[in-house]
Amino acid sequence: MDSRAIGVFDSGLGGLTTVKKLIEYLPGEDIIYLGDTGRVPYGSRSKETIVKYAQQDAAFLAAFDIKAMVIACNTVCSAAYETVAAAYAMPIYEVVSAPAKTAVETTRSGRVGIIGTVATIRSGTYESEIKKIAPELKTYSVPCPLFVPLAENGRTDGSDIAALTIAEDYLKTLKDAQVDTLIMGCTHYPLLRDVIAKVMGPTVTLIDSGAETAKSVAKDIRTNKLPQNDGNAGSIRYFVTDSIEGFSALASEFLESKVSGQVKQVALE
Amino acid sequence: MDSRAIGVFDSGLGGLTTVKKLIEYLPGEDIIYLGDTGRVPYGSRSKETIVKYAQQDAAFLAAFDIKAMVIACNTVCSAAYETVAAAYAMPIYEVVSAPAKTAVETTRSGRVGIIGTVATIRSGTYESEIKKIAPELKTYSVPCPLFVPLAENGRTDGSDIAALTIAEDYLKTLKDAQVDTLIMGCTHYPLLRDVIAKVMGPTVTLIDSGAETAKSVAKDIRTNKLPQNDGNAGSIRYFVTDSIEGFSALASEFLESKVSGQVKQVALE
Repeated sequence: MDSRAIGVFDSGLGGLTTVKKLIEYLPGEDIIYLGDTGRVPYGSRSKETIVKYAQQDAAFLAAFDIKAMVIACNTVCSAAYETVAAAYAMPIYEVVSAPAKTAVETTRSGRVGIIGTVATIRSGTYESEIKKIAPELKTYSVPCPLFVPLAENGRTDGSDIAALTIAEDYLKTLKDAQVDTLIMGCTHYPLLRDVIAKVMGPTVTLIDSGAETAKSVAKDIRTNKLPQNDGNAGSIRYFVTDSIEGFSALASEFLESKVSGQVKQVALE
Repeated sequence: MDSRAIGVFDSGLGGLTTVKKLIEYLPGEDIIYLGDTGRVPYGSRSKETIVKYAQQDAAFLAAFDIKAMVIACNTVCSAAYETVAAAYAMPIYEVVSAPAKTAVETTRSGRVGIIGTVATIRSGTYESEIKKIAPELKTYSVPCPLFVPLAENGRTDGSDIAALTIAEDYLKTLKDAQVDTLIMGCTHYPLLRDVIAKVMGPTVTLIDSGAETAKSVAKDIRTNKLPQNDGNAGSIRYFVTDSIEGFSALASEFLESKVSGQVKQVALE
């Protein structure tokens, strides 16, 4: 038994799609979430800036004496995972290897698509993770820089013309390549699932990177690789770096439920 | 004569549309530009965060012993102009009053539209500026949060379906209100001029907030309210807070010409 919380951070609120799954799989665990809403988005920034911001995010969470950390941001995992992981002794989960493994297990055609932010795609992290497990697979990756603003501005409906037009443009090469499995390599993208599914068609399996990671955290708890909490209902605390005004409305979009728990604004250095 | 530079800052690269006009009207002046590309965009953030970032931006420029400062960002002007202006003795130009005055002089129907970021529209700065000059005018304002990402991702063509669909949604109430003058209250928006013009129709006059401000700086120099440089060709230096990789390509979109001049990355505190 270990009643310490699991820390989760993201560049903004996209990581809440991962928190949603953690709550679903691990209702007894306490969670501390940090969203760097004062500097979101990270996905269009340089590696150097992302590393600097990620170190500050991780240091903030680590100060809480947590038992594990989840980096619920593909951009951070692609640019800064090694740097963050090297700095702490606790288990640090990233959102790339679990979905990569699931994609390898899912594909039958051997053609896997990857979508993410400019920084995530530029890093090639997904490709190398997949090649490590299954070097024979073919991967096709495309950056989708407008997907985060579309998700944050509520243009997520499967009949939204603007979202569909942009998705058609981004996903064309993946459709042409006839991928049968598509990794949504950004924790914002599950909000656009209907749009992406409509463009890719019903034969393509969409993989949610945050959900796959939450599953692997849950598995580690089930197998005692990570100590379990005491079995009471878990609590959740939210920290953001911009004002908390409007947080609950937007956060509930990502959590697909009402926000319950304390919300506080903090400054990072 | 005063050979000191004019300092210009923006949350990112949108302010370069103002720089373009300053170069056009005042080819003999030196310019120092700061774009906070490591934390752009400001328009979706709280007033408190915008004020903090703006103070850091202004302090960076003021350290250069400049003769005047232009805040080439409507979001900053709406949330933090008084705070920044109170801290320095030099003339500080904002991008709201000049376009507001031009709008009042332009409208014949007495119905003026205003578009900008969430923070700019929330502030009501344009409305109060217009009411000060012409209390009888009717104003209609709409936040357009997706315009900045669309501009930064090159979806600016007058035939871009996604940009047109989003613009139709945002601008519908302004068309219904039959405004004849529309203030583009964000220095990114001139890039979307073709899209906005197509939606609003040929009878609506679009006002470029950065260009109007550059005009008023030029007028102050012409009338000796602001001292002129020595008449040689002006130089320009660029500072950004994210990496300089990719700066020239994107900056030349906003400047509508090749970037010439030194580009340097800096950290703000």
